[in-house]
Amino acid sequence: MKKRKKNREQPPAPQEGLRCRGRVWVEKDVETFIGFGRVVLLEKIREHGSISRAAQAMQMSYRHAWKLVDSMNRHAGSPLVVASKGGSGGGGAQVTAEGERMIDRFAELRCRLDRFLVEQTALLFR
Amino acid sequence: MKKRKKNREQPPAPQEGLRCRGRVWVEKDVETFIGFGRVVLLEKIREHGSISRAAQAMQMSYRHAWKLVDSMNRHAGSPLVVASKGGSGGGGAQVTAEGERMIDRFAELRCRLDRFLVEQTALLFR
Repeated sequence: MKKRKKNREQPPAPQEGLRCRGRVWVEKDVETFIGFGRVVLLEKIREHGSISRAAQAMQMSYRHAWKLVDSMNRHAGSPLVVASKGGSGGGGAQVTAEGERMIDRFAELRCRLDRFLVEQTALLFR
Repeated sequence: MKKRKKNREQPPAPQEGLRCRGRVWVEKDVETFIGFGRVVLLEKIREHGSISRAAQAMQMSYRHAWKLVDSMNRHAGSPLVVASKGGSGGGGAQVTAEGERMIDRFAELRCRLDRFLVEQTALLFR
């Protein structure tokens, strides 16, 4: 076998300014189940205790936010958001333990994607 | 240390029907340089020998296709597409060796993303 020079063992630096970017989401039966926007919505529901206030905070219609929550709840093994019977101010909404788990799992997935993209940036353009 | 039962050593099966999906692209100085649509455009230019016929095949305006080619050429180390001086039918366009290299590199990147997504599907939801 040929001896390689030591400087060939290092992957060459990528072309300056190039960067791999990416997006990841999870489908259930070919429909979107969890993605970045949906996780932000879950976090806003946790923060505000209400779908309508979460929607407002995201400049999203209540109808759209409700549809996203309904889609997540239908696709999950158990609901990610439940209605909480309210007092005089009307009912709110709570993120369940399963919802919290999904928020965490999606954060982990995005973290691993970020690592993957850093590796690919180093690998690709040499 | 506790002994683990053998069936705990296997990663549990992901929830049925769940699948990680993703998209990847390459930016140069925070602008898109190469992505899926741009690579399809390069392949269509190779096939048709012309930006306008490639645009037509993709149901894209010539103006939009031309802008994408211009963006790729400006961001690449050397042009990915060059005008070929035509005969009576007017000038065409050719994908350069650097363009072919980008097509291949992007295919490899998508391949690695697909592998990553299969791994993540197995890892995530257990």
